[in-house]
Amino acid sequence: MRTIDWVGDAVEIIDQTLLPDKCVMLRIHTVAELIDAIRRLAVRGAPALGVAGALGVVLADGDPDQIAALRAARPTAVNLAWGVDQAAAHLDEGRAAVLAAALRVRDDDLAASRSMGARGAALLEGDRLRIMTVCNTGGLAAVERGTALSVVQTLHERGRLAEVLVLETRPLLQGARLTTWELGRMGAPHRLIADSAGPYLLARADVDAVLIGADRIAANGDTANKIGSYALALGAERAGVPFIVVAPESTIDEDTPSGDKIEIEDRGADEIVSVRGVRIAPEGTQALNPAFDVTPHDLITAIVTDRRVIRP
Amino acid sequence: MRTIDWVGDAVEIIDQTLLPDKCVMLRIHTVAELIDAIRRLAVRGAPALGVAGALGVVLADGDPDQIAALRAARPTAVNLAWGVDQAAAHLDEGRAAVLAAALRVRDDDLAASRSMGARGAALLEGDRLRIMTVCNTGGLAAVERGTALSVVQTLHERGRLAEVLVLETRPLLQGARLTTWELGRMGAPHRLIADSAGPYLLARADVDAVLIGADRIAANGDTANKIGSYALALGAERAGVPFIVVAPESTIDEDTPSGDKIEIEDRGADEIVSVRGVRIAPEGTQALNPAFDVTPHDLITAIVTDRRVIRP
Repeated sequence: MRTIDWVGDAVEIIDQTLLPDKCVMLRIHTVAELIDAIRRLAVRGAPALGVAGALGVVLADGDPDQIAALRAARPTAVNLAWGVDQAAAHLDEGRAAVLAAALRVRDDDLAASRSMGARGAALLEGDRLRIMTVCNTGGLAAVERGTALSVVQTLHERGRLAEVLVLETRPLLQGARLTTWELGRMGAPHRLIADSAGPYLLARADVDAVLIGADRIAANGDTANKIGSYALALGAERAGVPFIVVAPESTIDEDTPSGDKIEIEDRGADEIVSVRGVRIAPEGTQALNPAFDVTPHDLITAIVTDRRVIRP
Repeated sequence: MRTIDWVGDAVEIIDQTLLPDKCVMLRIHTVAELIDAIRRLAVRGAPALGVAGALGVVLADGDPDQIAALRAARPTAVNLAWGVDQAAAHLDEGRAAVLAAALRVRDDDLAASRSMGARGAALLEGDRLRIMTVCNTGGLAAVERGTALSVVQTLHERGRLAEVLVLETRPLLQGARLTTWELGRMGAPHRLIADSAGPYLLARADVDAVLIGADRIAANGDTANKIGSYALALGAERAGVPFIVVAPESTIDEDTPSGDKIEIEDRGADEIVSVRGVRIAPEGTQALNPAFDVTPHDLITAIVTDRRVIRP
């Protein structure tokens, strides 16, 4: 089952806001519907957003306003704009060429996930590995298998995985809802933890490596990823645990020299003052909600891409 | 309104599990009821647990089994055992002497909160201070005013507080539910954040000081506090922001030489796989739930007690 695909004349995506309770496939025929799905995180994850961007250009049918709106639907995710550009480069050649380019983005993502999984697993030493991860970087963040979770899946397939500690990933709980669901389907042992327990469990020597994805990697290696990644990087450094970013080459943004130039999206108070529709704070409570943070390159042991291993 | 008090022939406490939705006062006549209230966190916070321990000895009416059970109701909180011991030392002198000793624990806590607030506020330089805090260390954690939040309240009363950033404090959301409620009642500006955003917002230079409480302080200054404190300490160190522990002298446990000797309570999976009764992970998901972490003394700028300032 693919997270995102082109089927007939529409984009099909799994609506991730309904997981793990229900697995519902959406059929999307317009750019407006696609932007809505992107904004409410029905489709999310940097690689999947790249595919969404490319397939969205097919839906736009050459309309430059729609293409520009799609490209800007989520500011931090460089892959979305990248995917749009891949398909839009063929607008002059007609719809068939645009569709072919978008399907290449999809197929390249499938190959990239397998490549990152193998390269990341080869980088780690030892058997019975205990991995810590945040957010969802699995098949649900890509077309299949994903980025950091593709490494986990490869380790599991090779009998080298002892356990995954999964951060729940407030505010939207992608770890609790999505990563546990994927690990359950692959039969990989895992336990869920509160986000704030990550650095402490690293200090307690319960973990062999931290594996995370990336939403944008600056030219100097500074990495924007789900809020909480930076705290894990600090914990990993103090504990002497490898901190590894797994992301496709398309995530690297050579036009952004360093992390302080990356725009961090604030997603508003609603996600903070409630959890899955249940209010957790007094009425009227204000909130700050940075969706991402930036991990400086000096805290990153290695960046694993579909082509190479970078040591910032 | 006091969080815990002796009224007539019973212990009265605010049931904090119902806040901020409802403010319900419980009347407790037996040690068994009190232990239940402590275990389900209807009463919580190190100083309040000290008072609960002392008043509980009055309810035990000299029964050593009940006193021992009360003393062990929460293993990480040294104040509970300390409070029990304060009152139990007078068992030979009869019930009136035990009650008088327990009321001294209560009155000493009131005085200690005022003292910590003034001493902590004097320690911080500047006006328009932006403070970050985790969990609830306010009046609800003590009898009135509290520990770290007593410093905040003193700053606010003196016109020196710009804003408080409050970590929601998963799993039980004491920050979102209780600290926001207290700050709202005192009219202090505040915003709620996800726990994992704390270290990043420190890096972004949005904060002048981190103020936390403590559940147990080892002889060398290592401090056990709510899970997530250690991550804030790492973030504060990297950002060059003062990281200040505010706790009464009774929290210092000279019999525990260092933090690695502090027993950390695991409170089980239920609190992690659900939020206020709403399931957030697939059925059957396992979890790790350390309720506290230990911040090594080298990450602590100062410990403010009701008697002194310690620089570990």
